[in-house]
Amino acid sequence: MKITDGGICAAKGFKANGIHCGIRKSRTKRDLALIYSEKVCNAAAVYTNNLVKGAPLTVTKANISDGKAQAVICNSGNANTCNAGGELIAEKTCRLVAEKLGISDKDVIVASTGVIGQPLSIDPIAAGIPALADGLSYDGCCYAAEAIMTTDTSVKQIAVEFTAGGKVCRMGGIAKGSGMIHPDLATMLVFITTDCAISSAMLQKALKSDVKETFNMLSIDGDTSTNDMVAVMANGMAGNTIIDGDGDDFNEFMKALNTVNVALCRMIAGDGEGATKLLECKVCGAKTLTDAKKTAKSVVCSSLLKAAMFGADANWGRVLCAIGYSGADADVEKIDVAFISKAGKVEVCKNGRGIDFSEELAKRVLTEDEIEIAVNLNDGEFCASAWGCDLTYDYVKINGDYRT
Amino acid sequence: MKITDGGICAAKGFKANGIHCGIRKSRTKRDLALIYSEKVCNAAAVYTNNLVKGAPLTVTKANISDGKAQAVICNSGNANTCNAGGELIAEKTCRLVAEKLGISDKDVIVASTGVIGQPLSIDPIAAGIPALADGLSYDGCCYAAEAIMTTDTSVKQIAVEFTAGGKVCRMGGIAKGSGMIHPDLATMLVFITTDCAISSAMLQKALKSDVKETFNMLSIDGDTSTNDMVAVMANGMAGNTIIDGDGDDFNEFMKALNTVNVALCRMIAGDGEGATKLLECKVCGAKTLTDAKKTAKSVVCSSLLKAAMFGADANWGRVLCAIGYSGADADVEKIDVAFISKAGKVEVCKNGRGIDFSEELAKRVLTEDEIEIAVNLNDGEFCASAWGCDLTYDYVKINGDYRT
Repeated sequence: MKITDGGICAAKGFKANGIHCGIRKSRTKRDLALIYSEKVCNAAAVYTNNLVKGAPLTVTKANISDGKAQAVICNSGNANTCNAGGELIAEKTCRLVAEKLGISDKDVIVASTGVIGQPLSIDPIAAGIPALADGLSYDGCCYAAEAIMTTDTSVKQIAVEFTAGGKVCRMGGIAKGSGMIHPDLATMLVFITTDCAISSAMLQKALKSDVKETFNMLSIDGDTSTNDMVAVMANGMAGNTIIDGDGDDFNEFMKALNTVNVALCRMIAGDGEGATKLLECKVCGAKTLTDAKKTAKSVVCSSLLKAAMFGADANWGRVLCAIGYSGADADVEKIDVAFISKAGKVEVCKNGRGIDFSEELAKRVLTEDEIEIAVNLNDGEFCASAWGCDLTYDYVKINGDYRT
Repeated sequence: MKITDGGICAAKGFKANGIHCGIRKSRTKRDLALIYSEKVCNAAAVYTNNLVKGAPLTVTKANISDGKAQAVICNSGNANTCNAGGELIAEKTCRLVAEKLGISDKDVIVASTGVIGQPLSIDPIAAGIPALADGLSYDGCCYAAEAIMTTDTSVKQIAVEFTAGGKVCRMGGIAKGSGMIHPDLATMLVFITTDCAISSAMLQKALKSDVKETFNMLSIDGDTSTNDMVAVMANGMAGNTIIDGDGDDFNEFMKALNTVNVALCRMIAGDGEGATKLLECKVCGAKTLTDAKKTAKSVVCSSLLKAAMFGADANWGRVLCAIGYSGADADVEKIDVAFISKAGKVEVCKNGRGIDFSEELAKRVLTEDEIEIAVNLNDGEFCASAWGCDLTYDYVKINGDYRT
């Protein structure tokens, strides 16, 4: 398996596009994305656990209940949530896309991201769909990736190549992240395409299993969004024998999916709202996997630690504090902590107590833009990683006046 | 029951003082507080749930295991946590206080607040105790209240008068709060004194019950501190018949304690690190008390809502979002939300959907420094309140470089 150029159009038979249709005020900001597969795909998705769910999620769930999909339509600028008639608008959007593409409206995945509780008009969407569909191309990945962005500052895409049943398969993904992102759900919007042939059931199994280690281990701000989903479409055009059970091919597929998802997680975390730094907490030596995960998540979620990382301040007591309230089983007297980056490694805590370290080295390590917080609980065999970002002035600025 | 002037010296027989002994660098910052009762008190305390616990907590727990205490010693500037020999230093501190005051070292409550993981020297404490004790007075409440502050910007104290068994009793409290404060523990440091006669068992019962509705419903930043405690001392000098069971007198006592604790909660929330606004989420119409509490806490903990409140932005979708991920049982279609302050009331959401409102009025309401977020779940009879504050540039600034 190897990482290649491209995104959702790396897999055979997938086209994409993104345009500005008028939901967002700024004319330079694309706000409507379309992904289309030449063949009907097996499809799977996971959704937010928030009780308040965006209208598009309900419609998407119903549409892919048969494990099939052929297109994704997604707007930014309005979440289509907590408003009147949201489901009707989501359904209408699917119908318009289906009519234009000559596919079934039950094979359309629909998603929205943006402000909650605002009316969404079908008009700009209806007006935009013809040009959006006419502009679909094998080079349109970046346009789609741009059109799903909200406060994201960079396009997030990745593609990989792997082998299944002797055939070269490709998988690609795009993501939008930035704010309102927190573990314990299928955070944010992610669309993944692959030309690998795999059954809907195995696709759902793969996705459900992998998000536990990837998107559910990601937090920007502790807020679990109302609109998040991760959807995968597999059109089988690589020509491999269909993966319909466990085995080597499924394992290869899982590896590819994990590579795509980890890469997108890191991109989302590094581009968290206002973020200047990607934080990765790697926990080892936990008694159970659950303890390892709880510990890693708690550390990357700590507002105090996030602010300290922004200030390049090696205030490791906040790491211990976050471990202590994580709910994980740990023996405080055994905990080791180090900070690691391209600039080096600085050990700051051994057996739960502070050790002498060079503040100068610590400053150099923490001034980099990717920081690993290495925690060894020295109490077992389990490991886990979680991703987050620092808490900055810009996070406050972006969210102090998001609507206007 | 009425609110009166003063703090911990309002109750008969309590003296206090606070000095700068040298733990903190700034000579103008008091860093050592002492509270003393002329008579041995019945005492009770609750502590943080963090697995990582400050050394003073272990020592205090042991000392008041017999339900008795006569003095509180507390330093700021160093948490005496995750360091070498912390318990020995906490014990030594108790011995020095006890010797100077001529009391038992087992009747001393010891507490620390400040940076985690730094060695704490006994020297400044030992050098400071004689002057600290010699300066004890009935007017020393403010000095003690000052000396326990960390990043607090104002002294937090309150006193009330109530009647038990026909006798006038007084109760007062001081608190330090500001950062690393989160529900589900006896957040921050609070010391409460009363001259009411009450048994240790009833005192513990009253405290344990009341913190569930007060300090456990308070969040500044989602970080559960390692050093928090709320301790109460009752010296019986009001001369009332001792309260040793349920009844009218105990109910009066509970009312007084709740008044003191709610007032301190509001002071702590309003003076949260970097805060410009006190947020109070009042939830009504919940199916159970647990649902009401979960909802209220989730709303005041949302980073996104906290940032919106800083920007006086009526982004009520974030309130719905926080209710949705709170884990509380709710019917989204029934939820009403309004923002209330001295400037008026603006209803923003009815039956889970946005309603037209005046953005101008909303701005006026949200520009005040005390904001109520009124949530009606319209689904039952239970209510709860939680307190928090807005998320500001200054929170990031204060915590980006706290150690230096």
